Order: sequence, then C-alpha cells, then structure tokens
Amino acid sequence: MSEFQDIKEECCEANKQLPACGIVDLTFGNVSIVDREKGVLAIKPSGVPYETLQPDEIVVLKVDAQPDANHHLDLEAIKIEGDLRPSSDTPTHMRLYQAFGNIKAVVHTHSRNATAFAQAGLPVPCMGTTHADYFYGEVPVTRPITPEEIERHYEWETANVIVESFQNVSPDQVNAVLFHGHAPFVWGSSGKKAVENAFALEIIAEMTMKAMLLKPGAPSLSQAQLDKHYLRKHGANAYYGQK
Amino acid sequence: MSEFQDIKEECCEANKQLPACGIVDLTFGNVSIVDREKGVLAIKPSGVPYETLQPDEIVVLKVDAQPDANHHLDLEAIKIEGDLRPSSDTPTHMRLYQAFGNIKAVVHTHSRNATAFAQAGLPVPCMGTTHADYFYGEVPVTRPITPEEIERHYEWETANVIVESFQNVSPDQVNAVLFHGHAPFVWGSSGKKAVENAFALEIIAEMTMKAMLLKPGAPSLSQAQLDKHYLRKHGANAYYGQK
Amino acid sequence: MSEFQDIKEECCEANKQLPACGIVDLTFGNVSIVDREKGVLAIKPSGVPYETLQPDEIVVLKVDAQPDANHHLDLEAIKIEGDLRPSSDTPTHMRLYQAFGNIKAVVHTHSRNATAFAQAGLPVPCMGTTHADYFYGEVPVTRPITPEEIERHYEWETANVIVESFQNVSPDQVNAVLFHGHAPFVWGSSGKKAVENAFALEIIAEMTMKAMLLKPGAPSLSQAQLDKHYLRKHGANAYYGQK
Amino acid sequence: MSEFQDIKEECCEANKQLPACGIVDLTFGNVSIVDREKGVLAIKPSGVPYETLQPDEIVVLKVDAQPDANHHLDLEAIKIEGDLRPSSDTPTHMRLYQAFGNIKAVVHTHSRNATAFAQAGLPVPCMGTTHADYFYGEVPVTRPITPEEIERHYEWETANVIVESFQNVSPDQVNAVLFHGHAPFVWGSSGKKAVENAFALEIIAEMTMKAMLLKPGAPSLSQAQLDKHYLRKHGANAYYGQK
Repeated sequence: MSEFQDIKEECCEANKQLPACGIVDLTFGNVSIVDREKGVLAIKPSGVPYETLQPDEIVVLKVDAQPDANHHLDLEAIKIEGDLRPSSDTPTHMRLYQAFGNIKAVVHTHSRNATAFAQAGLPVPCMGTTHADYFYGEVPVTRPITPEEIERHYEWETANVIVESFQNVSPDQVNAVLFHGHAPFVWGSSGKKAVENAFALEIIAEMTMKAMLLKPGAPSLSQAQLDKHYLRKHGANAYYGQK
Repeated sequence: MSEFQDIKEECCEANKQLPACGIVDLTFGNVSIVDREKGVLAIKPSGVPYETLQPDEIVVLKVDAQPDANHHLDLEAIKIEGDLRPSSDTPTHMRLYQAFGNIKAVVHTHSRNATAFAQAGLPVPCMGTTHADYFYGEVPVTRPITPEEIERHYEWETANVIVESFQNVSPDQVNAVLFHGHAPFVWGSSGKKAVENAFALEIIAEMTMKAMLLKPGAPSLSQAQLDKHYLRKHGANAYYGQK
Repeated sequence: MSEFQDIKEECCEANKQLPACGIVDLTFGNVSIVDREKGVLAIKPSGVPYETLQPDEIVVLKVDAQPDANHHLDLEAIKIEGDLRPSSDTPTHMRLYQAFGNIKAVVHTHSRNATAFAQAGLPVPCMGTTHADYFYGEVPVTRPITPEEIERHYEWETANVIVESFQNVSPDQVNAVLFHGHAPFVWGSSGKKAVENAFALEIIAEMTMKAMLLKPGAPSLSQAQLDKHYLRKHGANAYYGQK
Repeated sequence: MSEFQDIKEECCEANKQLPACGIVDLTFGNVSIVDREKGVLAIKPSGVPYETLQPDEIVVLKVDAQPDANHHLDLEAIKIEGDLRPSSDTPTHMRLYQAFGNIKAVVHTHSRNATAFAQAGLPVPCMGTTHADYFYGEVPVTRPITPEEIERHYEWETANVIVESFQNVSPDQVNAVLFHGHAPFVWGSSGKKAVENAFALEIIAEMTMKAMLLKPGAPSLSQAQLDKHYLRKHGANAYYGQK
C-alpha cells in the first residue's frame, strides 16, 4: 500500500467525475491533488482514458520543483511513484500549488462554454447569483502568453501568467481563471470541490453567454447582491446548507 | 406518521422531479408545498442532494410568520417538523404564499435559459403558442433588488420585489417571474403542476431566445392568438385534454 | 379487432417516436395517419402521455368532415372509434389531408429550433445539402393568422393558412411548414417517414440558425446543388440507398 | 473469410462509432478505410442504419478507378465484395485517397456545428489550443461547387474541389475540410483516429462559434502557441501521452 494512497484515490475519483458531469471531451482534462505535508502532488497520467483509470496509475511527484536555469524541468527525475508519464500539464499544476498556498486540488478542462470565453479573450462577468454563489466576482481571463514564455517553459509559464491575473484578486475567493486562447483552470479545497467549481464555471459561462447575446452591455450584479450571495455560502457567516 | 405526511411526500416527489426534467444543476433548486388549512408549508432542506432526499427529511414550518421589527425571521422558532435546516430561500416561498392566495406550490430553479433572461434583466415576451398554452402574457422580470432591501431581509424582500411585479398581472394567469440578476420563481396548483410550469418556462425561454437572436425586434403573438391558446387550455371553456 | 387496426397501430407507434427522437416536450406533439380508401384518419387522443399510449386509445374519425355554416365542427359526431377525445389539433390534420391529396401522415410538434423560426416569423432557407436531401427548397413560414380566422374556427383555419403557403410550392416536394407564431406541421408518405421529416426539419433548423448567426446574409444553396441533392434521393432517378 | 476482413471490420466499427459519439443524425455519415497494398477501399453501404451494420455488409471496391470520358463511374463494375450498394459518396472518398497519399481512413458527417460553418461558407479559424491540438491551422472551407462540376460527376468533383483547398495546406497537418454548403470531410491514420478527428472538429466548431458570437473579430491563436500545441502532440518531438 502506497503512503500516498489517499491522494491517489482522491485524484482518480476526481478525474473520473470529469466525464460524469460532462465537462471533458476526449482526454481534454485532468485533476491533481496536493499533500502539502508530504510535499507531493498526485496527477492523472497523460492521455489515459478516464473510464479505465485506476488509483495505482496516478503519478506522484514532488510539488516543490522548478525548472533549471535552462528552463528545463525533468518530470521523471522528480517522480516519486507511478509507471506512467504524468499529464503534460503537470508543471502548471505544480506552480499553482506553489503560488496559491491554500488550494488543495487543481482541475483543468476544455469545457465548452468556459473555453469559448477563453478563446474570445473575455472574462466571465458576474451577472447573476449563480455566479456569486461560487465565485466572488468576475472570473478573470489571462493576457495572452508570449512567444518568449512559450519558448522558455510553456506549461510552467502558463501558471505564471495565471498568477499574474491574481495580483488584485484572491485565489481563495475566485477559484478559477480562463487562460487566454486556451481553457479554464479551476481549484478548490478538495478534488470533489474543485470539480464542482469547474462544473459551476461551465454552467455559469453558458448562462452568462446567453445573457450577453440577449442583451449586449447588460450590467453586472450589484456589489450588495454579490456580497449577499457569496457570503451566505462562504465564510464565518454562511447560513446555506446544513451545519 | 406525521399529520403532514401528504405534503411532505408531495414536496419530496416534486423536488426529485427537478433533476429528472433537467432544470436544476448541483443543488440550485427547491420546491415547497403549502397546506393552507393547517397553516404550514413543507420545503426541501438546504443543500441536500435530490437523489437521496426522503419525505421525512422535508421541513415543515408555519406559513404565516414574518420578520420582526429588526428584520429578523427565526426559522428554527417557526419550524414544526424536521431535523434539518430548511432551504435558505424559505422566507421567499413563505411570503409568496401569503401574497398569492390561490397558489399551492412554489418552485425555484436556476434553469439555464430562464436564468439567462433573468441575468439580462429581460422579461420573456410571449412570442409563440407554446408560451400562450402556459402563461397568459409575458413572463415579467423584476426590478433589481436594492442594497437596502438586501440589508433588511434578503429572502423576504425578494418575495416583496416579486409581488411588486404582479400589480397589473394576475399570479393565477402568469405563474412565473424572473428575478432580476437571479433566476426564475414559478408556482402552480400542485407540486407536479408547478414543476411542469417551471419546465415549460425553461423550454419557452430557449425557443424565444433563439427567435430573438434570429430576428431582433420580432413582434409578440397577437392578443387574439394568445387568448385562443391560453383559454383553450385554462378556465371554463377549455377543451384541451380529457374531461 | 378493429377494421382500422393497422392505422391505429401505425399512429400509436409514430406518436411514440416523437419523444424517442427528442422532438417533443411535455405533450406538445401529435401524429395522425389517414386511410383514404376507408375515408378515416387515426389520431392521438388529447393530452395523453406518449409513454403509456396504446393502439386502442387512438381515435378514429371521418376525414371528409368540415365545419358547418356556424363554423362549428363536432368531433364527437364524426368519431368512429375511440373512447377518448381526439387531439385538439384534429381539424388541422383533417383539412390538410383534404387539401394535400398525396400525403399519408401528418406530424405536429413544437420542436425547439423549428419553433424558434416560427416564432421569428422566418422561413428556413435552404442553406445546405442536409436540407436539400429532405426538402426541395426553403421551408415556408405562413402569414400570421387573423383574429377573424381565430374566431371562425381556429384549428380549421390554421390548415387553410398553411394551404395558402403552398400556392406556388408543392406539398409533395416540401413536406413541412412553419406556422407563424406557432410551430411546425410536417407530413409524409407514412407515419415513420413523416416523423423522420419532422426530425430532419429540427436538425436543419438548428444548423441553419447557427449558420445565419455566424454569417448574417449568407446565401442559399445554388439551384444546381439543390437539384442534385434532392433528386439523388427522390424521384425516378434517385440513386441513394438500396434498390 | 474475406481477404479484406480486417478493413471490413475496421470500417464497420468506425461507422458504428459515429452515432456513439453524437456526430451523425439519421444516416448522414459514412466512414471508409483504404488498403493501399491491395488497392481497395472498404465503405459503408448506402442508407443502412448504423445499429445493425455488420462487417459482411461493408462494400469493397477498387480504389484506383476514375470516371470515364463521359464522366461516368460504374461503382458496380469496380466492386470487389459486397451485396449492397456502396455509399453514394464513394467517389469522393476514392478520389481523396488518390490525392492524399498518406491517409488511411475518410469520414464524412453532417455534424451540426461543423456543418453550420460549411453552410455559412466560413472556415473554422484556429482560436484555441483545443483546435491546435488537432489541426495545424484553420480548417478550410472549399469554394462552392459549380453547376458544371455538379453536372460532370458530382461526388467525384466534390473531392476535386476539396483537393483545390489543399494547394497551400498539408492534408497531413490539417485532417479536415468543410465543403461549402454541405458538411465536413475528415481523415486520419486509422478509422478510429479519423472518427476522433471528426469529433474533435465538431466540438471545436461549437466552441469557436460561441467565441465568435461573444466577440466578433477576436483574433486567432498566435503562431507560437499553435506551434507549441500542435507539435507537442504530433511529430518527432511530441511529448503528450504515453511513449
């Protein structure tokens, strides 16, 4: 029995939830789980179907690595458990755990409506309470990644571009971002919660896209209503759900 | 056996119909049933999944309560049966039963197309007979709720804002409203009928959105055709369905 | 055993296909079958669910009836078999069989994309070969029905308004129409074929709506390509499918 | 046992995948497989349902045939195995194999979103990494086919019009095309891979259409990001998936 059995199982289970809730096509999606005490992350192997995925196929790697001076990051060298190659997006997940100290799981999908916003280079404005129940304000879109960043270390710099979007936004209050020209990255306090956030983002993107097409220029939710909905579900004064 | 067993079962069954007909995601929806003779309403507990919901988890509360002078409404104090917390939307349902004397069930969802209209701040105009078969004229959108109303008692004032939209519209002829920046509230003569109305609103919103995108400014149905369709299904001269 | 057993079974089966192929919601749809030799039509009873529909619930009526001088048409008086009320759309079906001498089955649905065109008051232009494979040119939309026509006999006049749209179009080559502000009526050489045509119309409406939104003003298919596709599937020189 | 058993089974299996992944309606789609050593292609019979399709119903024909001086191509004369008529699109597949020397399978569908682009006469621009993971640049749309070409040999000339679109684009790097006013043709290194490409095209078309509606005139992906994504999945330096 692996000493990382718990996060491997959580990671496997969360990856299987992606197709179950309709937010991945083909193999366009992956979930990782971090164990900060042990200094490791568990992530889906690259290009493996969700249906047959098993916990012992999950790859475990050190979470505190970074590229060397030549912008090279040898994933095999920092692998701790697993026979398969980890997701090619592993350096993005790794860097996000390093930058966002409170998150426990990262989800990457190409879910269709959220990806449409990413392709359009637009944030998802907070136009309704569904959004406010999950994300405390608009879900930002990054700037485009530059050719130089792509050249350095694409997946690592992808995370750096994301981090740049959170200079004035708390990643603990807005658990998602749209990568310009790419797709969403979402996180949360557990694998299950991060997948739920990714699903919520997808349906919010659908509703908000339709609202924007129905009424171009329609305003966002008032700050008071945003506060009310976000805070009745999150934080010390929440009163939604069971105690 | 509870003396409210009948409305608890009707309430449980109607809540389970929400995901079955595809008008809720996650836990974004709830149904309540009123028993006006006994002075109570039965409502879904907050944040509980539909799949496993049981009649004895349904919460029963007094229906004639209202907030005190400090705008506080203690739901635990007016709870009659049930171990769980009722839906956080309970005061909205309660106030709607008080204001609309003929309705028997209230449904709240964030169904995607109806919510898009709510987010755009637009009513659903009556552009077709599908609409006229269910709702006698456009489904109104409320004005935005004010910061002061949110501060007073958000869920209670939500209902008051809804009631304001029915000054010149009969809630017995138009069984639905879109809450601005939020989502639909729908009602009916039974739990089953209210859920059917909520589903009808959702598909009408989809068709009408598409019609509006195909032809911006397209006119609504004529009054004569609206009358014909609504009245062949509702009221003394209805001739649709079996006797 | 009824002497109309064959059309009752065909009618029942065709009605059940409507939800199976996703072109009806609730009870918004019905199919009828005509037997011209026996002078009768078989049609779905009004407001009955598709799932439980049985052949012996199908209603059989005379097909050659028409409203009296007071614009009244007593369906019970011309009913030949069946305990239930026939669909409230029965006079529309009846009149279509009288006007269009070659058709064998009529389908009425409120399928969502075709209905969006009807609500927008727009025909479905022939923009692609999918369309040309089924319908020989644009699917017309009727003019709006007038208050006077509604007053006379709504369902009967509905058919007359449809017939008016086929003055310069053959109902044998274009098996469908969109009723302005209402929904599609479709027909064919059998119950199965008419339902297939109704399904084809729905997916064509979806594709063509999207094409129109992507490129407003995009031209229709050339006459040569329309001829090629329609005629390789229909008529004496068809070469699609098995002999 | 047929000496073409392997391609007949591959062809049958790939055709059955079309409805399974939701990219065909009715019988609007077909897959063929080529065996270049044996000089044959295997293709779906015309108008036969996917559900019941059997390998021994697959039709095998010579792949190196061409129309005679009168623009006639007698498919029966070049049939090698099979009791049924081959797909009416057979000459298109045949000509594509002749023109594009590396491809192993051809898929034709009327998948709804890709067809909307074809009907609008628009290419699918490369607006995101999902696209770049599959197709190395925009998926082209052909020019309209002319009445003269339709008259000569419609299906054969269809392929010639496609080939014309690849004068400056490699069919090995862009495995798909939209036929103007018609629908997509897609190819790949196996039946399974070609169907996957056709499915990827469909979801990319959906996402890109939505992005274009959200932000008309939004730019395409940078060349650097296109290179990065395409080349991390294809060619000598690919590092996606397992070795």
